[in-house]
Amino acid sequence: MIKASIVGGTGYTGVELLRLLAMHPDVDVAAITSRSESGLPVAELFPSLRGHYDLRFSEPDPDQLAESDVVFFATPHGVAQAMVPEILKRGVRVVDLSADFRIKDQQLWEKWYNQNHACPELIGEAVYGLPEVNRTAIGAARLIACPGCYPTSVQLGFLPLLENDLVSANDLIANSASGTSGAGRQAKLDNLHSEVSDSFKAYGAGGHRHLPEIVQGLESFASQPVGLTFVPHLLPIVRGIHSTLYATLLDANVDLQALFEERYAAEPFVDVMPAGAHPQTRSVRGANVCRISVVRPQDGDKVVVMSAIDNLVKGASGQAVQNMNIMFGLPETSGLEVPPLLP
Amino acid sequence: MIKASIVGGTGYTGVELLRLLAMHPDVDVAAITSRSESGLPVAELFPSLRGHYDLRFSEPDPDQLAESDVVFFATPHGVAQAMVPEILKRGVRVVDLSADFRIKDQQLWEKWYNQNHACPELIGEAVYGLPEVNRTAIGAARLIACPGCYPTSVQLGFLPLLENDLVSANDLIANSASGTSGAGRQAKLDNLHSEVSDSFKAYGAGGHRHLPEIVQGLESFASQPVGLTFVPHLLPIVRGIHSTLYATLLDANVDLQALFEERYAAEPFVDVMPAGAHPQTRSVRGANVCRISVVRPQDGDKVVVMSAIDNLVKGASGQAVQNMNIMFGLPETSGLEVPPLLP
Amino acid sequence: MIKASIVGGTGYTGVELLRLLAMHPDVDVAAITSRSESGLPVAELFPSLRGHYDLRFSEPDPDQLAESDVVFFATPHGVAQAMVPEILKRGVRVVDLSADFRIKDQQLWEKWYNQNHACPELIGEAVYGLPEVNRTAIGAARLIACPGCYPTSVQLGFLPLLENDLVSANDLIANSASGTSGAGRQAKLDNLHSEVSDSFKAYGAGGHRHLPEIVQGLESFASQPVGLTFVPHLLPIVRGIHSTLYATLLDANVDLQALFEERYAAEPFVDVMPAGAHPQTRSVRGANVCRISVVRPQDGDKVVVMSAIDNLVKGASGQAVQNMNIMFGLPETSGLEVPPLLP
Amino acid sequence: MIKASIVGGTGYTGVELLRLLAMHPDVDVAAITSRSESGLPVAELFPSLRGHYDLRFSEPDPDQLAESDVVFFATPHGVAQAMVPEILKRGVRVVDLSADFRIKDQQLWEKWYNQNHACPELIGEAVYGLPEVNRTAIGAARLIACPGCYPTSVQLGFLPLLENDLVSANDLIANSASGTSGAGRQAKLDNLHSEVSDSFKAYGAGGHRHLPEIVQGLESFASQPVGLTFVPHLLPIVRGIHSTLYATLLDANVDLQALFEERYAAEPFVDVMPAGAHPQTRSVRGANVCRISVVRPQDGDKVVVMSAIDNLVKGASGQAVQNMNIMFGLPETSGLEVPPLLP
Repeated sequence: MIKASIVGGTGYTGVELLRLLAMHPDVDVAAITSRSESGLPVAELFPSLRGHYDLRFSEPDPDQLAESDVVFFATPHGVAQAMVPEILKRGVRVVDLSADFRIKDQQLWEKWYNQNHACPELIGEAVYGLPEVNRTAIGAARLIACPGCYPTSVQLGFLPLLENDLVSANDLIANSASGTSGAGRQAKLDNLHSEVSDSFKAYGAGGHRHLPEIVQGLESFASQPVGLTFVPHLLPIVRGIHSTLYATLLDANVDLQALFEERYAAEPFVDVMPAGAHPQTRSVRGANVCRISVVRPQDGDKVVVMSAIDNLVKGASGQAVQNMNIMFGLPETSGLEVPPLLP
Repeated sequence: MIKASIVGGTGYTGVELLRLLAMHPDVDVAAITSRSESGLPVAELFPSLRGHYDLRFSEPDPDQLAESDVVFFATPHGVAQAMVPEILKRGVRVVDLSADFRIKDQQLWEKWYNQNHACPELIGEAVYGLPEVNRTAIGAARLIACPGCYPTSVQLGFLPLLENDLVSANDLIANSASGTSGAGRQAKLDNLHSEVSDSFKAYGAGGHRHLPEIVQGLESFASQPVGLTFVPHLLPIVRGIHSTLYATLLDANVDLQALFEERYAAEPFVDVMPAGAHPQTRSVRGANVCRISVVRPQDGDKVVVMSAIDNLVKGASGQAVQNMNIMFGLPETSGLEVPPLLP
Repeated sequence: MIKASIVGGTGYTGVELLRLLAMHPDVDVAAITSRSESGLPVAELFPSLRGHYDLRFSEPDPDQLAESDVVFFATPHGVAQAMVPEILKRGVRVVDLSADFRIKDQQLWEKWYNQNHACPELIGEAVYGLPEVNRTAIGAARLIACPGCYPTSVQLGFLPLLENDLVSANDLIANSASGTSGAGRQAKLDNLHSEVSDSFKAYGAGGHRHLPEIVQGLESFASQPVGLTFVPHLLPIVRGIHSTLYATLLDANVDLQALFEERYAAEPFVDVMPAGAHPQTRSVRGANVCRISVVRPQDGDKVVVMSAIDNLVKGASGQAVQNMNIMFGLPETSGLEVPPLLP
Repeated sequence: MIKASIVGGTGYTGVELLRLLAMHPDVDVAAITSRSESGLPVAELFPSLRGHYDLRFSEPDPDQLAESDVVFFATPHGVAQAMVPEILKRGVRVVDLSADFRIKDQQLWEKWYNQNHACPELIGEAVYGLPEVNRTAIGAARLIACPGCYPTSVQLGFLPLLENDLVSANDLIANSASGTSGAGRQAKLDNLHSEVSDSFKAYGAGGHRHLPEIVQGLESFASQPVGLTFVPHLLPIVRGIHSTLYATLLDANVDLQALFEERYAAEPFVDVMPAGAHPQTRSVRGANVCRISVVRPQDGDKVVVMSAIDNLVKGASGQAVQNMNIMFGLPETSGLEVPPLLP
C-alpha cells in the first residue's frame, strides 16, 4: 500500500482527494492537515465521509509527512512553495494541486500571483502534470505541478489542433465556464448562494491567472507563439467546467472528428463524443474524464471544440490521483473507475 | 386606454405579457386565447396572476380580436403567418413575438424553419422590432416582427462596433447562454429539471435558427458582409441570456468605453456598465434592460463585449411592449419601469 | 411626498426596500446608510438599481435621518435599539425590520438573543407590525416592530384556526423552509452556493430565535397557551418561505375552506387558494402576498395549512412598506401592486 | 458472477442500477430492456455510461431474461405484475422497484393505484425489501418488493420509536421533501426546470400513494394501529429525500440518541448522526445510506426525527442492489461502498 498525506484538507480539493482515495485499492491516507481545524475528525466537517475515515485533521508536521510515500498539497498558492523543499529532501514525492509550480517563468508567476516565489530552485524540476502530454516525465518526477481546472479543459480541447498545426495559433478563443466549487471553500460574499444562484456572468475578462498557464501549455505543443483570448464565467452549478473553444482552420480538408478520435484513442480519461453530440458537465460529474466534441459550423473555416470536465476531479483531485498512479507504476485508472453521477 | 389581445397565452412569453401589461397604465387586456385551455381562468394556470386578472382563455376569434387596438402573437412559429392577414385587414396592429416575419429572405426562412411561409406578401412590410435600430419605422408600422432573444443580445452588443466599422466583420464570434424559459413551456424530456439542473452544455453548435436572424440584423448596420460563429448554451437558470462576443479590432486607438456609452446614452433600455464591471443576468431579471460591458484584454487586438438581458423581457415580451409604446405614441418606458428583481 | 430613510442598506432587506420604494408613488428615499460602504453609490453595489437611484451610502447621522418622515431599520438585531430613541425624539416614525422590538418579554428576548436589551423602555410601545392582526394599532404607532419572515408565514396560517378555537393549541407543528436570502448578505461558509445548492436540510431543530416570537404572536389571538414545535429548513432557492402547519381539529364539522376565505376576504395581501391547490413560493416571488391553502387529509382530525411568502417582501421589506402605508394613511397597497415574477 | 437483467432501463432508477452495478464486483448486466429505445446503445442515452457499458436496449423477452440469475424491474407500476409470474416460473429471482407488490391488501392497492391487480397470487409471497426490518425473509425470497423512496425515509426514522412503543402511534406526522428525480424521467410540464427551479411547494397533501405503504410498514413494527399525516413536497434539487418526522413521546425519560444509535449500530446503511447535527441530502448523494438525527426540542414531549436519503439509491436502486446482495449471499455492502459526492 502507498501511504499518502494531504496538506490542506478543509477545502474542496482536499475532501475530493479523500473521496477518491477511499475508493483506491492501493492507497492509505496517513494524515490530513489543517492548522485551523486541527483535532477535528474529518467526518465531522464532511459528513459524507462518515464511515469512510477515522482520521482527524492534524497540524502539518514535516516529520509526520515524511512517513508517507506521497504528499498532496491541496492548499492555496504560496503554501506548497514553503513546505515542498523539506518534504522532497526526505525522499517523499509531491503532487501539488496549487498554482505554485505550474509556470516555468518565475517573473511571470510573480506578476500574476503578486508575490515573490519562495522556491524558485524547484520550478525547473517540477513536471506539469497533464498526463496526455507529459506522461513519461510524470512517471519519473519527484514534484508534480497539477494543472489548473480551466487550463486542463482548454489544453485538452486545443491539443489535437495545435499539435498538427491545423489552426491559426495566434488567434485562439477560450470561452469557459466554471461551477462554484472552483472558487474554493472560502467565505466570500460573491460566492453566496443568494448571489450566484439563478444567475450567470463573466468575470476576469480583462485577465485571469489561468491565462499564462494556458498559454504556456498550448505553446508546449504548438510550433509557434500562441495568442489566446480567455474569458471565464461563473455557473450556478457546484461541479463542472465547460470550455467552448474557437479557432480558425488553416486546412479545410482535415477530418476533425477522426483527428480527435485518433489522438485520444489510447487515453483512458479523454472521451471524444460522436459527431453531433455536445458534452454536458453532468455527464462527467464526479469522474476523472474530459469529454470533447468538435464541430465545424456550416463547414466554414472555424472549428469549435467543446470540452467538459468536473473541475474537482479531472480538473484537480482526480488528475492528482492519476499523476500519482503514473508516478508509482500503478494502473493509471486505479481508483478512478467509478461512473459519473447522472442525473 | 389601448385595448390589447394576446394570441397564445399559455406559454412563458404569454404570461410575461400579462405580467407586464398589468403594470401598464394605458393598456387593458381584452382577450387572451388558447385553444387547449379555452375556458380556464388565466389565474388558475398562472397563480402569480391571482388578483390581477379575471380573464379566461378563449378560442382565437378574428372578430373578437378585431375589437382590440393591438394583437400580440405569443405563439410558436407558423401560427402568426396564418392569422395576421385577417387581423391587419380589420385595421388592428400586430406585434408578433414569434419568428414568422423576422427574416426578409423567404427562402432562407423556409430552409431554417423547414416549412413553407404562409404569408410571404407581408414579409416585406413587417418591421424588425429592435427599437435601438428601427425606432422610426416601428412607430409607423402595422406589423412588428419582434426580435428573438439571442438576436437581441448579440445585435446590441455588436452594434456600436459594426456601425463604425471598427472590427473585422467576417470573423465575429457570439458565445451565448440562455436560461430554460427560452425553450418555452413545453413538455420535453430535455427540459426537465432533473436533466438541466446542476449541468451546462452547448447545443446547436452546428447551426441554430437564430443564426440567420442575427446575421441579417448585423448586416443591416455593418457596411459589409458578416461572418458569424454562434454557439448557444443552456444555463440551469430560469431567466436570462448572456452573450460573450469576440471581434478583432481594426483600429487600436478607439476608446471603446466612450464609444459604447455615447451610442447608448439616449437609449432608455440599454445600460453600458462602468469599465471593469461584468453584467450579471440577475441584474436584469424581470426588467426590460440590456446591460453591456466592453473590454479589451491585455490591450490587444481583440474586443470582448458582454451583454445580459432577461430573455422573457428585453428578449421577448418587454421588447414587445416597448414596440407597442412606440407604435401608439406612448412614452417608450411606459409600464416598463420597475427595477429588476435582485437577489 | 413622504421622505424615507433606510439605516443599514447593504443587506438584502435594504436593497429590497429600495426596489419597492422605487415603485412607490408617494415616497422619496432621502438617505440610505452604511458605515462600511459610506460614499459608494448604491447602484454600484446593486447593479439592478442602476438608473433608479443616484443615492450613495452615507454614515448614519441622526440629524440627517431626522429630516425624514420615516426611518426603516434594515439592520441586524441590536442596532435599532441603540438608535431608535434619538430618532423618535425628533418626531420621526420608525419601522424596524429587525428583531429588536418584536418580543414583549424583555428577559425572553435577552435569553434568545444573548445580549442585554439597550432600550427596554420602548418595548411596550412598539406595535407588532402584522397588519392582518394589528391594523388599527399600526396606524397610530410611532414605532413598528416588523414581524420576522417565518413568524409571518406561520401566524397567518394558524390565525383563522386559533382565533376560533378550532384546534388544540398546545400541540401545533410548524414545518417551515426558507430560501437563502433569509440568512442575509453575510459571508459565511454555510451559505456558499457550493454548500447549499442541490441540497436540503433542517437546522435549529432544537430551538430557533423565531420560536418565541411565533408563540407570542399565536397566543395574542388564541384564547389559551400555545405549544408549538417549530423546525426550520434551508431551501436551495433565493427567495421564499413555505410553512406546512399541522394541528388537531377540535370540531370535525367546520368548513375549513370557507373559514379561511372569510377570514381573509378583505385582506389585500392574503390569498386563500382554491380547494385542492398548493401554494408555490414562486407564485409570490417579488410580491407582498401570502398564499394559503388548507386541507384535511382523508377527512380525519388533522388540518394541514400551507402558506407561502417571499421572505424579503411579505416577510420583511414589503410588509414594512405595508406598515408605512397604514401609518401614513396611504392606500395600503400603494407601491405593492406589481405581480409576482413567474416563471 | 451473477447475471442480472433490468426491465425498463430508460428511467432514472434504470440508469442508476447501471451505475451501481458497474461498480459491483460480482455482477454482470446481461440485458437491459426498453420497448421504445430498443436497439439504442445505453451509453447514447446516458453519456455518463460511455466506456462502462457496451449494451444496447433490447425488447423485453422472457426467454432472454430467464438466462439471468436476477431480474430488476425499474418500470412504472403495472408492468412487473404482468411479467413477473413468467420469470419466476423459470427459476429467476426478481427485485421489483415498482409499487406492484408492496401493499399486502389487494383492494387497498387497487384503490390507490386505480387499476386491477394483474397478479394477486404473488402479493402474499413478495417480501417487502427493507433490510433493516426484513433481512432474513429477503435472503430466502424469490420476489422482492423494493420499498418506495418516501416510505424508506419515513420508516427508518420512526422504526426505533415504534418498535419500542415510545410514541403515540395514532398521531404521527411525516413532512417529507423529494428532489425531482423522484418524479421519474417523464416529459411533464410540472417537472420542467422552469417550473420547479427556484421554487418549493407541497403536493398531494390530501393523499399520496405512498401513504398506505408507509402505514402498512409502520404497523408491521408498531404494536398498535398507526395514524399518519403525510405531506410530500417538491424540492428544486435532483437527488435527495428529507423527512422531518414528528411524534409525541409517551415516556419522558428515554435517551433518544442512545436508542437510535443502538438500534442501528449493526446496520451498514443507516447512520445515526451525533446529537445536534442535522442530516443534509447532499451528504448522502449517490450513496446507499440513510442518515438520521433525533432531537427533542426544549426537552418537551415532542420528538423530531430527521432522515435523509438519496431517493435513487437507498430510496430505489441502491436498496435493490442491497436486497440482491442479501438474496445471493454476497456481502451486503458489495458494490455499495463508494462515498457520497460532496460537494
